[in-house]
Amino acid sequence: MSKIPKSHPRYNSLISREKIVQASNNGLLAESAMIAHGRGEAFDYLLGEKTSRSALKSIKEVAKRLKGAKKPVISVNGNTAVLAGEELIKIAAIISCPIEINLYYRTSLRISKLLDLMHGYKDKISKENPPEEWKGNWVEEINNVKILGENSQGKIIGLEGPRSICCVDGIEVADVVLVPLEDGDRCEALIALGKEVLVIDLNPLSRTSRNATVTIVDEVLRASKLLMKELLISESNEEIWDNNIVLIDALEIISNSMNRIK
Amino acid sequence: MSKIPKSHPRYNSLISREKIVQASNNGLLAESAMIAHGRGEAFDYLLGEKTSRSALKSIKEVAKRLKGAKKPVISVNGNTAVLAGEELIKIAAIISCPIEINLYYRTSLRISKLLDLMHGYKDKISKENPPEEWKGNWVEEINNVKILGENSQGKIIGLEGPRSICCVDGIEVADVVLVPLEDGDRCEALIALGKEVLVIDLNPLSRTSRNATVTIVDEVLRASKLLMKELLISESNEEIWDNNIVLIDALEIISNSMNRIK
Repeated sequence: MSKIPKSHPRYNSLISREKIVQASNNGLLAESAMIAHGRGEAFDYLLGEKTSRSALKSIKEVAKRLKGAKKPVISVNGNTAVLAGEELIKIAAIISCPIEINLYYRTSLRISKLLDLMHGYKDKISKENPPEEWKGNWVEEINNVKILGENSQGKIIGLEGPRSICCVDGIEVADVVLVPLEDGDRCEALIALGKEVLVIDLNPLSRTSRNATVTIVDEVLRASKLLMKELLISESNEEIWDNNIVLIDALEIISNSMNRIK
Repeated sequence: MSKIPKSHPRYNSLISREKIVQASNNGLLAESAMIAHGRGEAFDYLLGEKTSRSALKSIKEVAKRLKGAKKPVISVNGNTAVLAGEELIKIAAIISCPIEINLYYRTSLRISKLLDLMHGYKDKISKENPPEEWKGNWVEEINNVKILGENSQGKIIGLEGPRSICCVDGIEVADVVLVPLEDGDRCEALIALGKEVLVIDLNPLSRTSRNATVTIVDEVLRASKLLMKELLISESNEEIWDNNIVLIDALEIISNSMNRIK
């Protein structure tokens, strides 16, 4: 697919960009999805394109909350599916939860294309070796991951129109929602419904970042890989969570990145 | 075109986004142009979506250098044409210089579509009232603005392949190039050829920003409107230019924007 050499200092970012462009050409993404991706690129650039210590703290907190949830669900939009779909299926297998394809700009064609993409990932992953720390039947757990999104009779109370649509056995019933790259309105509505909302967002100033229960200020693929590892380690953490601390830390990193030129 | 109310606090940004999405749908832009636009959106957001005092200082410096140039040219890519094509034609009319459509990912189809777009703008502007401070024959000056790009037998020495292509009577012969949204490699190559390179770039850390003769850290439409005004005012400015000062100032604004949450 790509001619970018692995030695390129921004290899991962450029590969992600290529994936997004290709997915957009294939009709998997909404019209402005590439613009959203570009905004993310800029913030990631300012964050130094690496997972900060405080983002890792958020990842650990998210792992703890996913493990403790009664009805967790992972809500995935187009960009998330393209960038980190495989990792999120592995996470869903580890915590035995469904994945819901849930689109802000919902069309049945895009839902169906993204379902195909995710089912393709499932087939691929089930043929791979399980993660090192995994104990159990990997193939079975991967096969058991439900990809919801087609039958969406549920509703996110507090929202109107197509963006209020969700799955009854997914977001509607969930107590904890891991939703990378979420829209601000929806994040607020989910919080208002009393759900724990765990987000991955590169902009620490976004409404989503500021309203979520836990915000991982990190790139979705990097964060998902680390989250999978955290879920496989049994480490208890009894701290009380203050989400503002990680947001302020991310802002300080961005702020300090400005010293690069001086 | 849009349902965004004029009272929306981010009206201009959202209108620009719509224009870019529509132009992309119409085949005017390269595949990753929307991603580039998104990066710009993020930086503009951090800059508070307004022209800073130091950006205005850069705009005044650019006006002075364009007026003093022997052979100025304005180099325009897809995003620039879509976002600020009309304003740049007015600027070209005021300083009597050509505009060159010059694309990093050059295809003859996109060149021809962008030429059509710019010629359409010329027709439109020539029917409008001239700017208040203008003295002269507006219609004639607008009609005289050459839109180059089709016959491109020139070469930017130091670059290879399609991105080295330029027009003999445009960039190749120019002593001063106003090139909003330029690529880093090309900016360096133009500087190496001894040309003055005047850029508009929202990322004060980009290679383009850091290598240009004068960098306007601002959004291309806002900056172009102000540049037009500056060109119509005769104000002399004899300071020696230090481009680092405006870059550091932009970085400080971004850095301070991080305090919004605290």
